[in-house]
Amino acid sequence: MKEWINSELPAIADQLEQKIVGTYHIETDEGLNVAGRNDIYRVLDDILAVLFPGAYSRESVGNKDMNFYINDMLRHICKDLTLHIKDVLTYHCATGNCEVCNCEETANSASMELIKSLPQIRDILMKDIESGLKGDPACQSFHEIILSYPYIEAVATHRVAHKLYQLNVPVIPRIMAERAHSKTGIDIHPGANIGAGFFIDHGTGVVIGETCNIGKNVTMYHGVTLGAFSPYDREGNKFKGKKRHPDIEDNVIIYSGAVILGGETVIGKNSVIGGNAWITRSVPANTLVYSKFETIYKEDSGSER
Amino acid sequence: MKEWINSELPAIADQLEQKIVGTYHIETDEGLNVAGRNDIYRVLDDILAVLFPGAYSRESVGNKDMNFYINDMLRHICKDLTLHIKDVLTYHCATGNCEVCNCEETANSASMELIKSLPQIRDILMKDIESGLKGDPACQSFHEIILSYPYIEAVATHRVAHKLYQLNVPVIPRIMAERAHSKTGIDIHPGANIGAGFFIDHGTGVVIGETCNIGKNVTMYHGVTLGAFSPYDREGNKFKGKKRHPDIEDNVIIYSGAVILGGETVIGKNSVIGGNAWITRSVPANTLVYSKFETIYKEDSGSER
Amino acid sequence: MKEWINSELPAIADQLEQKIVGTYHIETDEGLNVAGRNDIYRVLDDILAVLFPGAYSRESVGNKDMNFYINDMLRHICKDLTLHIKDVLTYHCATGNCEVCNCEETANSASMELIKSLPQIRDILMKDIESGLKGDPACQSFHEIILSYPYIEAVATHRVAHKLYQLNVPVIPRIMAERAHSKTGIDIHPGANIGAGFFIDHGTGVVIGETCNIGKNVTMYHGVTLGAFSPYDREGNKFKGKKRHPDIEDNVIIYSGAVILGGETVIGKNSVIGGNAWITRSVPANTLVYSKFETIYKEDSGSER
Amino acid sequence: MKEWINSELPAIADQLEQKIVGTYHIETDEGLNVAGRNDIYRVLDDILAVLFPGAYSRESVGNKDMNFYINDMLRHICKDLTLHIKDVLTYHCATGNCEVCNCEETANSASMELIKSLPQIRDILMKDIESGLKGDPACQSFHEIILSYPYIEAVATHRVAHKLYQLNVPVIPRIMAERAHSKTGIDIHPGANIGAGFFIDHGTGVVIGETCNIGKNVTMYHGVTLGAFSPYDREGNKFKGKKRHPDIEDNVIIYSGAVILGGETVIGKNSVIGGNAWITRSVPANTLVYSKFETIYKEDSGSER
Amino acid sequence: MKEWINSELPAIADQLEQKIVGTYHIETDEGLNVAGRNDIYRVLDDILAVLFPGAYSRESVGNKDMNFYINDMLRHICKDLTLHIKDVLTYHCATGNCEVCNCEETANSASMELIKSLPQIRDILMKDIESGLKGDPACQSFHEIILSYPYIEAVATHRVAHKLYQLNVPVIPRIMAERAHSKTGIDIHPGANIGAGFFIDHGTGVVIGETCNIGKNVTMYHGVTLGAFSPYDREGNKFKGKKRHPDIEDNVIIYSGAVILGGETVIGKNSVIGGNAWITRSVPANTLVYSKFETIYKEDSGSER
Amino acid sequence: MKEWINSELPAIADQLEQKIVGTYHIETDEGLNVAGRNDIYRVLDDILAVLFPGAYSRESVGNKDMNFYINDMLRHICKDLTLHIKDVLTYHCATGNCEVCNCEETANSASMELIKSLPQIRDILMKDIESGLKGDPACQSFHEIILSYPYIEAVATHRVAHKLYQLNVPVIPRIMAERAHSKTGIDIHPGANIGAGFFIDHGTGVVIGETCNIGKNVTMYHGVTLGAFSPYDREGNKFKGKKRHPDIEDNVIIYSGAVILGGETVIGKNSVIGGNAWITRSVPANTLVYSKFETIYKEDSGSER
Repeated sequence: MKEWINSELPAIADQLEQKIVGTYHIETDEGLNVAGRNDIYRVLDDILAVLFPGAYSRESVGNKDMNFYINDMLRHICKDLTLHIKDVLTYHCATGNCEVCNCEETANSASMELIKSLPQIRDILMKDIESGLKGDPACQSFHEIILSYPYIEAVATHRVAHKLYQLNVPVIPRIMAERAHSKTGIDIHPGANIGAGFFIDHGTGVVIGETCNIGKNVTMYHGVTLGAFSPYDREGNKFKGKKRHPDIEDNVIIYSGAVILGGETVIGKNSVIGGNAWITRSVPANTLVYSKFETIYKEDSGSER
Repeated sequence: MKEWINSELPAIADQLEQKIVGTYHIETDEGLNVAGRNDIYRVLDDILAVLFPGAYSRESVGNKDMNFYINDMLRHICKDLTLHIKDVLTYHCATGNCEVCNCEETANSASMELIKSLPQIRDILMKDIESGLKGDPACQSFHEIILSYPYIEAVATHRVAHKLYQLNVPVIPRIMAERAHSKTGIDIHPGANIGAGFFIDHGTGVVIGETCNIGKNVTMYHGVTLGAFSPYDREGNKFKGKKRHPDIEDNVIIYSGAVILGGETVIGKNSVIGGNAWITRSVPANTLVYSKFETIYKEDSGSER
Repeated sequence: MKEWINSELPAIADQLEQKIVGTYHIETDEGLNVAGRNDIYRVLDDILAVLFPGAYSRESVGNKDMNFYINDMLRHICKDLTLHIKDVLTYHCATGNCEVCNCEETANSASMELIKSLPQIRDILMKDIESGLKGDPACQSFHEIILSYPYIEAVATHRVAHKLYQLNVPVIPRIMAERAHSKTGIDIHPGANIGAGFFIDHGTGVVIGETCNIGKNVTMYHGVTLGAFSPYDREGNKFKGKKRHPDIEDNVIIYSGAVILGGETVIGKNSVIGGNAWITRSVPANTLVYSKFETIYKEDSGSER
Repeated sequence: MKEWINSELPAIADQLEQKIVGTYHIETDEGLNVAGRNDIYRVLDDILAVLFPGAYSRESVGNKDMNFYINDMLRHICKDLTLHIKDVLTYHCATGNCEVCNCEETANSASMELIKSLPQIRDILMKDIESGLKGDPACQSFHEIILSYPYIEAVATHRVAHKLYQLNVPVIPRIMAERAHSKTGIDIHPGANIGAGFFIDHGTGVVIGETCNIGKNVTMYHGVTLGAFSPYDREGNKFKGKKRHPDIEDNVIIYSGAVILGGETVIGKNSVIGGNAWITRSVPANTLVYSKFETIYKEDSGSER
Repeated sequence: MKEWINSELPAIADQLEQKIVGTYHIETDEGLNVAGRNDIYRVLDDILAVLFPGAYSRESVGNKDMNFYINDMLRHICKDLTLHIKDVLTYHCATGNCEVCNCEETANSASMELIKSLPQIRDILMKDIESGLKGDPACQSFHEIILSYPYIEAVATHRVAHKLYQLNVPVIPRIMAERAHSKTGIDIHPGANIGAGFFIDHGTGVVIGETCNIGKNVTMYHGVTLGAFSPYDREGNKFKGKKRHPDIEDNVIIYSGAVILGGETVIGKNSVIGGNAWITRSVPANTLVYSKFETIYKEDSGSER
Repeated sequence: MKEWINSELPAIADQLEQKIVGTYHIETDEGLNVAGRNDIYRVLDDILAVLFPGAYSRESVGNKDMNFYINDMLRHICKDLTLHIKDVLTYHCATGNCEVCNCEETANSASMELIKSLPQIRDILMKDIESGLKGDPACQSFHEIILSYPYIEAVATHRVAHKLYQLNVPVIPRIMAERAHSKTGIDIHPGANIGAGFFIDHGTGVVIGETCNIGKNVTMYHGVTLGAFSPYDREGNKFKGKKRHPDIEDNVIIYSGAVILGGETVIGKNSVIGGNAWITRSVPANTLVYSKFETIYKEDSGSER
């Protein structure tokens, strides 16, 4: 195989290189690396660590070192995030068509805006935690939520990614959202608007679409989909930029597996949506909705396992 | 931005620090770190590595070094786990109301109990593996189960976490369970009681509640929920501490997407629950249950994608 | 506890060792480590990094270093993969019953075949990316797909694992597939045959069985199952090696939560399968299929949450 | 050996533990770690990196990131150094006899004093570099000095350690000095007083004692000793705290291997001390001193090597 | 250069490979790695860490964890050292000519012997430390010796290497000795016999030959050589295995730069050898020896530097 | 101190930044990092590892993987060294005054030349090893030299650095030489010309100047200096570029501490220079040279230590 490696492998590498460089349409030397996934993951990990030191940080942090730690992390977050935002902005500029552009300044200000919003984000997360504490009988403490409920990682990530989405940062919010999706099974598009006091129990398989608006103190279980009817409108065009996903008002509970579809569908406040319900039109406030399933029972006489 | 970092960022850090310290209600210097998630993940990884050396360990382990390796790992597991259990016990003491408490001794004994139970846990895991080997036609060997079936990681983690739950260790069992949930999509509450020979195929989206009892040789597929009706009883109080989830008797098979709810629901032995079934009352032994779905077929003449 | 560690722990270690060595049926010193999961994960990470440098690689890669990087990665992939394939082949030989065997040469050639196929695999992945770009209105660029859509990692992994499956490499393809499953919630058996232009949106909970054939430009959403009726045939024998999973023809769209079962079930081209549909028999081309759900709405007057 | 490890080794460990704890005279749990050598090495490395970024830092530092980098390093130096100084002060308190002591505040102020002095230390180091550039005909650039002359590491370390010595920080200055000694073979006691423009060529074996005063623009070669006559005075008492080492005035050159001894010995300015000279009394200014060696030449007729 | 790398470099690699394999005279696949230097360095670091935890260990070690730490380190030292000793013994066997050999058992017992001797070695090191404390007026505490005097690392390493030398372990003692030489500039051959209470101040350039015997409470300074006259005897044969280096009796002090040569040279007890003395014959007890140097002083009128 | 860090430290950082940027005279963003010491150390480590795999490499290398390993290392050496050479060339260009320059091509060709010369360098190193084996009676095997004699690292480094010096690569050869000096105490200027079969025993304190020529099979001991009279000529100008250091002909032995000075001094072949000899004029072939020392012995009656 030694011979094959020396004689054949370089030509395969050349082929791959051409395909890669070809499909990336890159002209500059550094242009290729829009922003590696791992770089964004590292910044996101740092942001989560500064929101929940001790629980999410790599090392434990004593109260005495807390101020140093937070300052240190914020400085690094600021530096790294600015760099990555600038890179994606530059990349989109270079391939797009921008008359006058000031990627560096835009990156600086997006990064500072995010950092400024972190204290407020943490306040809202505290309310999300309180909802979990109230909503799950198995939960025994505030710390149990932070340390072992996946929705907290997903929702904390979302609140950060949503801020960047509002600041028109490309791609990075989606990479963050998918990081949380990968770890928790909860897929929230950074565009979704979600009020305080949000609680998702279990969470695997939850999908929340880009144009959703979710009110305060909403609770949902695993497998809930807040989706669009179809990616295409009646003329077969992509629904890009339009409102495609439902709104959920305050205090709604949605049980596991429920599917709620459509940009004009509104679930009125205080309503309860039963498990596996299939909903494609609006539901008034204070309504209980459930699907009726026909279940058949039959004696399985011959079962010999 | 340099100026902003030096002038504005420290005040944001101060705000964050106040919020964090405020919400954690910590009085001592070390109190903050109940136990970081990563610390618990590391101990869990070590326990899994000692149950399946070679497959789950960081490095390969030859037969010759096996005894040294196991001794070494057990010693470190013992030391680290004891430390973490003591920390969570102390934290709960400090904030709770304990007259006489002996956190260190309790931690020592919980840790030793867990280690003593590992040989037995491994015996039971061997039965879980046999069920997988029997249950999946695509599976070709014992090793394929250990190396590539997610349920093995989820169930091994559960059997460890359940032991700690029985020993009244707070929070840590839940952190372990959620680690497995994150990696496998299988969410088993550490309180659930699960007999030997348990097999879950695929597994994503499975939820098994705290007060479930599951018999021997039970098989289930992805997306199965063994849940509660609601977190509240009829008076609107949380169902804390009560039996809220179903029991599944020996040899039951539950196909994908089935939902079984309620603390008084019992699925009798040898029964088979069909895919997507919705079950809210008990099923006698030897019964085949399936949902009836009405499906509509219509020629999609205009499809122009 | 120091005394307990020194006096009791070694005996527990001995017990564990016996159980482990006993159940692994290993005779040689090195035999135990068929191939650790982490070793395979590392090779897979390298392969993904060479398919999408910059995005999936640990470090960013400039255009100038691209050729060096690809050559370097391919050489290491070749060396490491060959070693791991040889180990699993040898292990299966040693425990099985092989008359004449040439594990080393077989490993060499499997490894070279995989590497030779990488340029073609990348071409097909480009078509998978184009389908995503077309299929999701929320998606804004080619790079967004690579960097933040989980299906790309799952499908890239599948195309690599499928190649190794075709080359009769044991266990390793399954370890790769489960790596992707763990990270994306998408579970594709390496045996499945999947045409170019494949797109899965969201993806959590998707299961695609070993004997599926999927045509070109198929799109599916999260929670779709392409499964078997039962692991046993009517005589109670395992269905090993038989066609057990459905075929999906070109241009089919399958919405979230749909379940399609059985080895003789074929979904004809251009058909659309609605969300949560339950399908156990073939569907002609150009058909729109959907489930009818009975939903009940009731005013929830007393809701006091 | 497995048996021996389990049965005999713990007793040997107990013996070692008793000896260690016994000889360290520690009463508290944390008291043992006055300050590990490696911790001090890390702080020293950071200080050198901030004095010569790019050359001594772990990573290259671009001009653009320079300000961030220096701030970041200084913050960490401040935090870590303060901690280590406080630890050694506390340790010395606990074993010594201090009425009123304020270790934390003393540590804070020592650490801040050092950091404040860094810009001035760097100015002086620039003069040390200029002397090297002037003094070695083989040297081709300013950068060659920083990157490849060992005296620069030794002298930079000395100037930092000397500052801490002046601030009465125990042990840490000596650990720093020995770090440089280990890497360069140049042994300068932190107590020595050394003027700007100091250059040591080659350096191995140079020893400069605690109570030396060295003027400006002094140059020396490898193997030079500036030592004491004896550690004991005429009554056999240790010379603790007295002036025991020579003074060297401005512009002196000392060639390799010269030995200059005694606390009252002064080498007057502009003097030149020849190689291997042995000097035990003062030398007036503008003097050339050399040893006379008697060398014998003999034909080595029988050499058969 | 890409072309050159792919076309020319492999042939250069082939050349190098032939030269390496050729000169190593290796026949087996694993034979090449007698024992890498880094492997031995790691074991040596571990031994030093267990002799001086806190000071030499990578991390700080509290009193509470001391027993666990020492046990843990001893176990790993035992395992790793045994492996390396076995490898060098096997290598020497394979290339030498051994009738009956039991490398594994010999390695086991050498390793155990060393570990058994560690408590005694530590006792002796305490006496070496006391001598330093007594001998250097600049030294202020017991801890300063451990943390910042290079002779302690050199002498601790020597006492370990000497034990292995006595147990006839090949090569490894020399690798250890050179590790200390590299870090301290003190070169002690593992064969040398050195009594307790040994102190070397500064140390750079000290050389102590294989067949030296050094008594109790000997003190020496930097640059001292205890050497042989010549590597060849009068017939031109190598002096292999013969006594070639001097003996130093109890309480002797040897000042810097002194050279003492020859296997029959004995420095009698309580004697003091002056700096730079050149000694080639025995010195009676209680003698003061010094060299007479002729020094010339001349006014350096024209010095214009 | 928190306040001080936030309020005062940034200004100190600004001062340091100005001094650093000021003294480096850098105009471009990347210009600062001529080439960090650590980068060069890493390449040097790789080169030594490829010359002595197993002994100097980080990991052991079996015969089977040898070819892969060497190819892999050479590729990385080529890439990294080229980059670093280009950086130093560019830096020297930018600050110097070059009409037409082709730094990249020059770097490519220097790097390739070095790699091409490695097989020959290894041949010569084998002769250096043979001389050591012959010259030291304590040495027991070929491997002992490679693994534990510091001169081998120093001489191997020199032969590499000398090649780069001949190719006019700035600074990097000196960084390499000082790396070896730091680890071995042997300081060989990269300009020195050294024949095969060179052996240095012990080595600490050896200094070999830039314009030395050393013949074949020369042996020397620790503390030998081959130096210049003075850095200045009689007119007070630096001796830059002139022959300033002695020549040593074939088969010469130089014992420890000898000093040989001057660019016109030649030690004729087969001569033997005694320990501590001071030589400032040429010595004919076949001559034995030694210094005569006057030693005084006096009974030290009052020694009471």
